[in-house]
Amino acid sequence: MKEIQVGLIGFGTVGTGVVKILLEKASLLQSLVGAPLKLKWIADLDLNRDRGIPISKGLFVNKAEDIINDPDISIVIELIGGLEPARSFILKALEKGKHVVTANKALLAHKGGEIFQKAEEFKMDIGFEASVCGGIPVILALQQGLVANEIESILGIFNGTSNYILTRMTEEGLPYSEALKEAQQRGYAEADPTLDVEGMDTVHKLTILMHLAYGSPLNPEAVFVEGITRIGALDIAFAREFGYSIKLLAICRKEGDLLEARVHPTMISKGHMLASVLGAYNALFIKGDSVGDILLYGQGAGMMPTGSAVVSDLVNIGRNINKGITQRVPRNPANKEKGLAFKPFSGVIGRYYFRFSALDRPGVLSTIAGILGTNKISVASVIQKGREVEGSVPIVMMTHEARESAVQKAIQEIDRLPVITDRTVIIRVED
Amino acid sequence: MKEIQVGLIGFGTVGTGVVKILLEKASLLQSLVGAPLKLKWIADLDLNRDRGIPISKGLFVNKAEDIINDPDISIVIELIGGLEPARSFILKALEKGKHVVTANKALLAHKGGEIFQKAEEFKMDIGFEASVCGGIPVILALQQGLVANEIESILGIFNGTSNYILTRMTEEGLPYSEALKEAQQRGYAEADPTLDVEGMDTVHKLTILMHLAYGSPLNPEAVFVEGITRIGALDIAFAREFGYSIKLLAICRKEGDLLEARVHPTMISKGHMLASVLGAYNALFIKGDSVGDILLYGQGAGMMPTGSAVVSDLVNIGRNINKGITQRVPRNPANKEKGLAFKPFSGVIGRYYFRFSALDRPGVLSTIAGILGTNKISVASVIQKGREVEGSVPIVMMTHEARESAVQKAIQEIDRLPVITDRTVIIRVED
Repeated sequence: MKEIQVGLIGFGTVGTGVVKILLEKASLLQSLVGAPLKLKWIADLDLNRDRGIPISKGLFVNKAEDIINDPDISIVIELIGGLEPARSFILKALEKGKHVVTANKALLAHKGGEIFQKAEEFKMDIGFEASVCGGIPVILALQQGLVANEIESILGIFNGTSNYILTRMTEEGLPYSEALKEAQQRGYAEADPTLDVEGMDTVHKLTILMHLAYGSPLNPEAVFVEGITRIGALDIAFAREFGYSIKLLAICRKEGDLLEARVHPTMISKGHMLASVLGAYNALFIKGDSVGDILLYGQGAGMMPTGSAVVSDLVNIGRNINKGITQRVPRNPANKEKGLAFKPFSGVIGRYYFRFSALDRPGVLSTIAGILGTNKISVASVIQKGREVEGSVPIVMMTHEARESAVQKAIQEIDRLPVITDRTVIIRVED
Repeated sequence: MKEIQVGLIGFGTVGTGVVKILLEKASLLQSLVGAPLKLKWIADLDLNRDRGIPISKGLFVNKAEDIINDPDISIVIELIGGLEPARSFILKALEKGKHVVTANKALLAHKGGEIFQKAEEFKMDIGFEASVCGGIPVILALQQGLVANEIESILGIFNGTSNYILTRMTEEGLPYSEALKEAQQRGYAEADPTLDVEGMDTVHKLTILMHLAYGSPLNPEAVFVEGITRIGALDIAFAREFGYSIKLLAICRKEGDLLEARVHPTMISKGHMLASVLGAYNALFIKGDSVGDILLYGQGAGMMPTGSAVVSDLVNIGRNINKGITQRVPRNPANKEKGLAFKPFSGVIGRYYFRFSALDRPGVLSTIAGILGTNKISVASVIQKGREVEGSVPIVMMTHEARESAVQKAIQEIDRLPVITDRTVIIRVED
């Protein structure tokens, strides 16, 4: 039973979780793989910091290249994040005949095409379960569990930070800024929360899942994105009145030969399983043509949940090594570079929630309604309660089905009216 | 690219779903496996019935043995259910060097030890994703996705029939008998619903999962079981008042070196994800020591969801055949016959809901409370509303933590009191 030697690049939070599991569960993992998984080297720019685990300094190397160039290493774990030098490390490792495990969603979303191609060229395996939804086995489900399905739609809560903020706004009526501050204090949000709250992190994850489900290009720029920073406590309260929760949702839907792909704050019915996903939890809601609705729920981040996913990839690749095979699972159904093309966001059709901020003057409602009507947007219900917020009143409307392009045009026109005191908040409704 | 030839034994509902997927998705499946999956034979006792799919009669054989003895067949799918002849067919197929895919939970729960051993002896693969929770990839999660974890507990809603009945009782205030009738009319319950509503179907599934998670013996008799037939509309209403939903839960918890394993109606907090699982849906809620809480949710039965799981196993085994390997994944962590032993049910500690049916006479409450007190069961709250039901009034109590053996003793004593008009309803509370 030959040892499988593993090198870790990046000894941060997740890296520490991985090392912890490899050390504490060595014998369990050996029985699962059929051979010992031996951590040979750890590379990091800062190896002096105490990670609170008993680890021999003899494992430390200063340069990632020392791991990549070691012929005994079979699997390289990349946990440094970001595009470079992570990309170069991974490409070099693959060229040197090493399998790779990574949690790097930004890298895969932007450069996955190149990386997957390199892996196929050198017949190496890439494990990236940890890149989407942390410990929840979503990649496994798409690549193995749900293979008998054409995926009709994917709805997801992929960002724990945003979901924590929206949950606290909902539970306590907090304004966005306070909920963000609380998330930062509790370690759920970084000092600069942009990537999370503006939705790009969610876009990265959706991009990877769409590639697996549809073979669509790894191109995060093709996905419409809007963050949660303009959602107010008022919107949360109005949503509740209408029977909805507000979530930052990733949405992907197959429409004929096109893919609708977008990330934005979304109202979903309180009865939907995703409405029950609270706090920093993540969830993936998939509709397959055979299996129907599937929900996978759990912690999408954190040392141990993400470590759990990384180690599941190590076991998976270790089993392949032990059996003398690679590339057992193709990365997407057609294993092709070009999958379904994206539908332009302007053509998306759905229902909308608008919160206008307007001066409390006669005729305002009819002016707004007139502009919506001209743009063929029909209003389903209106709430105007006259609560004054900084000199203006909120007017809230729910529409019937309307086209995104018409909505954009109408709201631009409305936001230019002198009686409108702030940019209108638009929240799309998912039925 | 050599064809992988498949034979199907059992052309019922799920079998029809499997054939549908194999025919309609042949090219998708070929790209996923790396070789065509070719359905060569179908055996069933009734091959004349029209299944509504275009299938050549040339595929039909009358005897399962014709499939098992065909040297070209690589994978045998067993979908006839029940213990015999399913057991013999599977054992023979393994002996003949065929991989097996089955949805037969009763067989695996009772005879899985023998079947898994035979598979290991002949180095064949067994796929049984469809045996637990239909289309939800729960076996995959346990055998691959969550391998970095010691499973601390498993909670599950594994029976769609029971969950449908309890949901309708909750939504509409229906009595059990009417909800059952509705379930039968809608095709969610069989004419004889015993296996579902008395909990044995759930026990079978839990038994399989415990074997995977803990290596515990495949012995359904070791699991305490109680069905939902004594739950009344009153209990549902009282549960709601206390902030709970009533679900038929499978519960397994690791307590030191012992396993607690039981299936019974359970009150869970409305805030728990499992409380959101409504209608005929199933869900598995796992706590892993690394990953934390994971929920997997979806349809646990039906032609296409279960067909989806069977085909995922075919693809999985097909990938192994294509790579020239078998037994890539050990069936449980330690791959051993004897895992954790079971904790006696009498030693389980938890909180309880009691609904006593008593004559409305002075002193009844104090007599009941006295017996509970003598048995060291401390009452947390009481509701006595004086609604008269068939000559008696319901008295409802929630307890603090108590031991199952004490509860059994106390309730037996109480049920012998002349003022008690019906057997007391006991519902265990899961916090």
